[in-house]
Amino acid sequence: MPGPKDLTYLGCSIANSVPILGDRWNILILRDAFMGVRRFEDFQTDLGIARNILSSRLDDLVAAGIFETREYQDNPPRHEYRLTEKGKDLMDLLLALWRWGDRWAPPELRDPRKLIHLDCGHPTQIVAACAHCGGELKRSNLRIEPGLEVVEATSSDTQVPA
Amino acid sequence: MPGPKDLTYLGCSIANSVPILGDRWNILILRDAFMGVRRFEDFQTDLGIARNILSSRLDDLVAAGIFETREYQDNPPRHEYRLTEKGKDLMDLLLALWRWGDRWAPPELRDPRKLIHLDCGHPTQIVAACAHCGGELKRSNLRIEPGLEVVEATSSDTQVPA
Repeated sequence: MPGPKDLTYLGCSIANSVPILGDRWNILILRDAFMGVRRFEDFQTDLGIARNILSSRLDDLVAAGIFETREYQDNPPRHEYRLTEKGKDLMDLLLALWRWGDRWAPPELRDPRKLIHLDCGHPTQIVAACAHCGGELKRSNLRIEPGLEVVEATSSDTQVPA
Repeated sequence: MPGPKDLTYLGCSIANSVPILGDRWNILILRDAFMGVRRFEDFQTDLGIARNILSSRLDDLVAAGIFETREYQDNPPRHEYRLTEKGKDLMDLLLALWRWGDRWAPPELRDPRKLIHLDCGHPTQIVAACAHCGGELKRSNLRIEPGLEVVEATSSDTQVPA
């Protein structure tokens, strides 16, 4: 039986995401990055995070290909952290976290800021839409099917339970 | 300065989500719950997680209102963990984790299973759509605005950086 830190045996794309995204600080660092924060001092000030913890988390996010570093000053050398394409692709995850937190937090903890969709000009939140037809994805209209690569059909199709 | 575990000072709905969702095991437990797992032994078998850790995580998820317990046997008493409405509302978050893990994982780690949208019959993944107009939400078409409840306007509107 593999240890709990090695999740690759789960053979699941959610498990692939978890080592980096199942971490409180990483999520908050990513939130800041999406708001435009790029520099160590600015992350540190905004989050009130210990410097050694921030440093270790930024290293992890660079190693995971979510941030790339870019030097913005050479004497002394200083670099900033920029989202890569892989990092920018976490937008829908952060939108989902925002929406859920906003819907279920007690009123006094809700975010007073609004997210505006510039294309229509209205306050918005994420709705999960189908990449093929654009219709809404709901638990009741999704089914998980074994892929073609699965040779041994050990389990039948699994309907996402209602 | 508040300690790093008290994130309420961040005044942000993402920070509200983080204490529960910024945890590797909680995400995997939720994934299993969405696949239909409800019982302690089944979570334990599927995840290979230590029993005391699983027990503590399930307690946290119940305390957070994401699971509710229901007795399925009374002698000896046994209960199962069912997603509440608040828990079911995490669907888009899990879809976003799946999509991202699937897109960016090395091929040998990708999930061979497919998610089928029953309304159109095609393999699908999540696209972030606007709750108002249905258009796609992208970094380039979103802006964050201070809400009405913000009295002191310390920051101007923040454009989500491209």
